[in-house]
Amino acid sequence: MGIFSSEIHTMDDLFVHQLRDIYYAENQIAKALPDMIGKATSPALKQGFETHLRETEQQIQRLRQVFDLHGVDVAGVDCPAIDGILEEADEVSGEIDDKRVLDAALIASAQAVEHYEMTRYGTLVAWAKLLGRDDCAALLQQNLQEEEATDKKLSQIALNEVNLQAV
Amino acid sequence: MGIFSSEIHTMDDLFVHQLRDIYYAENQIAKALPDMIGKATSPALKQGFETHLRETEQQIQRLRQVFDLHGVDVAGVDCPAIDGILEEADEVSGEIDDKRVLDAALIASAQAVEHYEMTRYGTLVAWAKLLGRDDCAALLQQNLQEEEATDKKLSQIALNEVNLQAV
Repeated sequence: MGIFSSEIHTMDDLFVHQLRDIYYAENQIAKALPDMIGKATSPALKQGFETHLRETEQQIQRLRQVFDLHGVDVAGVDCPAIDGILEEADEVSGEIDDKRVLDAALIASAQAVEHYEMTRYGTLVAWAKLLGRDDCAALLQQNLQEEEATDKKLSQIALNEVNLQAV
Repeated sequence: MGIFSSEIHTMDDLFVHQLRDIYYAENQIAKALPDMIGKATSPALKQGFETHLRETEQQIQRLRQVFDLHGVDVAGVDCPAIDGILEEADEVSGEIDDKRVLDAALIASAQAVEHYEMTRYGTLVAWAKLLGRDDCAALLQQNLQEEEATDKKLSQIALNEVNLQAV
């Protein structure tokens, strides 16, 4: 959020602003995932990231539907939060030489991304319902459930495989 | 994480690095909360933030215990993720004139902070156990549970009061 956004007067303005924030964030995540796929060594992790890239592209389409349903332009706003999370992910992975330790760090970074998305979608679902937009809430809820499932899947890959090999 | 951190070779290095990341983050959150308390209008929200400030100070003390137990210096590392999340919280709150809408935005921002902490503590608990540091894991688990409880409490304040007044 920031210089590209207009002032916020109502809950509707705040909802649209937050929608544009997560739209920007999803697009940045879609750009970052190929690099994470490239860095991952564990086949399960690599495949998990590939699946999530396809899900992210689908989530962006759902967000475009939400903009259409709500009758506002599809647009992003600057989002320092996701920029910071992705910058940190990139920095820490650049400091690791051991590929097994790198896999563990990649999972931690991806889970930080998932948690950012989960909190934003949780808020957006609540606000959509409050504004009487159950149609938008249903689409946002689908994205939320996918993020929660991805977070759980990453925990399983960490606990069952990656962390054990990294130690 | 970044310019202040050394290179990471082992899971132990990664654990200490992540510990320093959340230590920096908790200290930044403790600095940001008084401003959020000042901006909040709902008495329940103001009180929730005040309680969480006291919890945050206690969490910082627990992190210092973890550093001591693990035999490493208490130190923070640069954390672009929390900087970005707090920058975004500050920017969006500066764009809102209606105090009821501002309360809803403050809750959303605080939940983004909580989710960042939850993902980092979740990772740290897993890594501490992996490294045989059940003593550290127990302290980190206490912080994790407090963050989860705060996140739930914020959702309740939003659903039961703030969102209804904001719309």
